[in-house]
Amino acid sequence: MKSLPNSAKKLIQEFSNLPGIGRKTAQRLTFYILQIEKEKVSNLSQALLEIKEKIHNCIVCNGITEEETCSICTDSDRDSNIICVVEHSHDIIVIEKTNGFNGRYHVLGGTLSPLDGVGPEDLNIQNLFKRIDDGMEVILATNSNVEGETTALYLTKILSKKEIRLSRLARGIPIGSDLGYIDSATLVRAMEGRTSV
Amino acid sequence: MKSLPNSAKKLIQEFSNLPGIGRKTAQRLTFYILQIEKEKVSNLSQALLEIKEKIHNCIVCNGITEEETCSICTDSDRDSNIICVVEHSHDIIVIEKTNGFNGRYHVLGGTLSPLDGVGPEDLNIQNLFKRIDDGMEVILATNSNVEGETTALYLTKILSKKEIRLSRLARGIPIGSDLGYIDSATLVRAMEGRTSV
Repeated sequence: MKSLPNSAKKLIQEFSNLPGIGRKTAQRLTFYILQIEKEKVSNLSQALLEIKEKIHNCIVCNGITEEETCSICTDSDRDSNIICVVEHSHDIIVIEKTNGFNGRYHVLGGTLSPLDGVGPEDLNIQNLFKRIDDGMEVILATNSNVEGETTALYLTKILSKKEIRLSRLARGIPIGSDLGYIDSATLVRAMEGRTSV
Repeated sequence: MKSLPNSAKKLIQEFSNLPGIGRKTAQRLTFYILQIEKEKVSNLSQALLEIKEKIHNCIVCNGITEEETCSICTDSDRDSNIICVVEHSHDIIVIEKTNGFNGRYHVLGGTLSPLDGVGPEDLNIQNLFKRIDDGMEVILATNSNVEGETTALYLTKILSKKEIRLSRLARGIPIGSDLGYIDSATLVRAMEGRTSV
């Protein structure tokens, strides 16, 4: 690597810092950047700066937005009586893609994780509590791993003081899957959560 | 995707334009960029601009450099009587990594490809011809695909007018491989190019 110019080494290092991009991919991207027009590179460079300057968190749901409140929180066509609680703002994109949910969101900004020193006060839970009124529906859509389940359990405990309908995303067999390839934990959950037909 | 702020959509699009980065990875990278410190992002942004400003082609070998001539062409410890001809400047990095070559390089800048309208005049062949003197050794290290072979064949034809030792990288079985998994074309080449022991 001695023969590589410093600026190339630096860009390879910067690309390697991104998640899921190893040394080889970083090298390939760097040589690609060297090949393409300067204008395209400055577009990418500009877009990186712009996103950090323009985007901040919605004051209502803690999702991402360029305004004070995000487009979902200001959309009057959406049902403000249903709140879907997610871990991160990118979870909103995943659920929005389904076109199957017309309520609003609340982003926790993480999960409870005592080992990493993340307690309830580090998450956006106080604001969730303030947003919820009696008669509303709250869907807990945290991930189905240890941290996600712990967080959902904690939220269930503190939210049960309110007169709301509280639910959790169904755990079960993914659509299109083969029973032979499903792990036992999922199968037990699917059995427990069986629906009458 | 309606709910995504414009600057986020733009960065996702810019990332998707990079080779090997699909829509999902671009989204993941964008949300990562949103999470990390502003300083780190501006480092990446800066490195992108810097590489385009500082790096250009070496006037001798056509490799990449920040100076007029690259560090390999100016290194007096390297044998200037052996020239290894490669397709692209990133091929130099691959060969340099082996620590097994102490000559100099010549970057063609592509391969002959009549279908894409790339003829000999589009490649850096004239300069190669000028660099070669009688008594030198030239190693053709183009890729082992149709375009690479065609280019090597063409170079063999025009360089055979000079009194040089001309060679091509050996084609054969990769180290550590199992005969059962080798394709027939490679096996035929390995048989033809067998070495006496």
